[in-house]
Amino acid sequence: MQGKLIVISGPSGVGKSTVTKKLAERIGAVISISATTREPSPKEKHGRDYYFLTREEFEKLIADGKLLEYAEYMGNYYGTLADTVKEHLSAGRDVILEIEVQGAKEVEKKFPDAIIIYLLPPDDNELIARLTGRARDDEATIRRRFENAKAEVAQAKAAGIYKYWVVNDNLDNAVDKIVRIVHKEKTGDNEK
Amino acid sequence: MQGKLIVISGPSGVGKSTVTKKLAERIGAVISISATTREPSPKEKHGRDYYFLTREEFEKLIADGKLLEYAEYMGNYYGTLADTVKEHLSAGRDVILEIEVQGAKEVEKKFPDAIIIYLLPPDDNELIARLTGRARDDEATIRRRFENAKAEVAQAKAAGIYKYWVVNDNLDNAVDKIVRIVHKEKTGDNEK
Repeated sequence: MQGKLIVISGPSGVGKSTVTKKLAERIGAVISISATTREPSPKEKHGRDYYFLTREEFEKLIADGKLLEYAEYMGNYYGTLADTVKEHLSAGRDVILEIEVQGAKEVEKKFPDAIIIYLLPPDDNELIARLTGRARDDEATIRRRFENAKAEVAQAKAAGIYKYWVVNDNLDNAVDKIVRIVHKEKTGDNEK
Repeated sequence: MQGKLIVISGPSGVGKSTVTKKLAERIGAVISISATTREPSPKEKHGRDYYFLTREEFEKLIADGKLLEYAEYMGNYYGTLADTVKEHLSAGRDVILEIEVQGAKEVEKKFPDAIIIYLLPPDDNELIARLTGRARDDEATIRRRFENAKAEVAQAKAAGIYKYWVVNDNLDNAVDKIVRIVHKEKTGDNEK
């Protein structure tokens, strides 16, 4: 049986990476590794953290239609290799993509039956607490991140592609909810 | 009581990051967050993954002697903020630095009683298996990484600063060994 493609988006600070890792463990899914033109850090490994490509290589992939989605961020390209995802799905493995709204739109066009999920912070105070807790930033920076996160959620709502909105009030709860969504979609019981 | 500074080095593919994370959990230590001039990825956060600085900011830190160690890699600076490490140590927290041989040399000069550890792969075959397992690379690439890893170990031996050599045959074993080393150093029972 073909695997399911699962898209997880959400604003900065909502805990996407943690939810994605936990979800992958729970359902035995593969987390898609992005290709990028960014330079690796000493601790990053090609094929584990990213596929590190030159700008020329990346632009050839774009030209050849080999990317499921891609975007530019801080002057570097980031994208998802279509063939790798398709191979996993054909082999019956579920694949999780942790991507932004623009990328999710592209994926939805190519995989209309992908399970497209948006992770929401529980409430404004909680979001501020998370943005504050994780770094030694000044108030203006935290305020700016908070406004950005609110704008990201508004943009996601406007995109009209997210079928499931999951509040990340608590890691295990959020993952449980997503596991049930995936199960429901797989068994065909997906009226919602 | 002053915390202990723990340095973990090792060749590519030996599993430094995994050992470091597990060790931090086991002994309740802080993992030092590096500063870098590299651009962040969409998933990376300032103050969690790195302190992302401009080249000017980084070079000012160098000029002001604010870095415990630093190096250039792929055209970007990476370094350890001395004040942050000192604050943790003063507060009684152990701090783990996952750094390369050159950086470890600098640290050893400034903190002669740091616990400086080199992680070794169990043997050549196992190292090749790990380098092979984690990516879809061709044989020439794997061979090159293997030779690099061997050269890195030789360089570490020549540096003459590593007091402890721990074979990472198995994650839990390696972490157990390091926990015992740290305990021994803390209780003053460190003849070896």
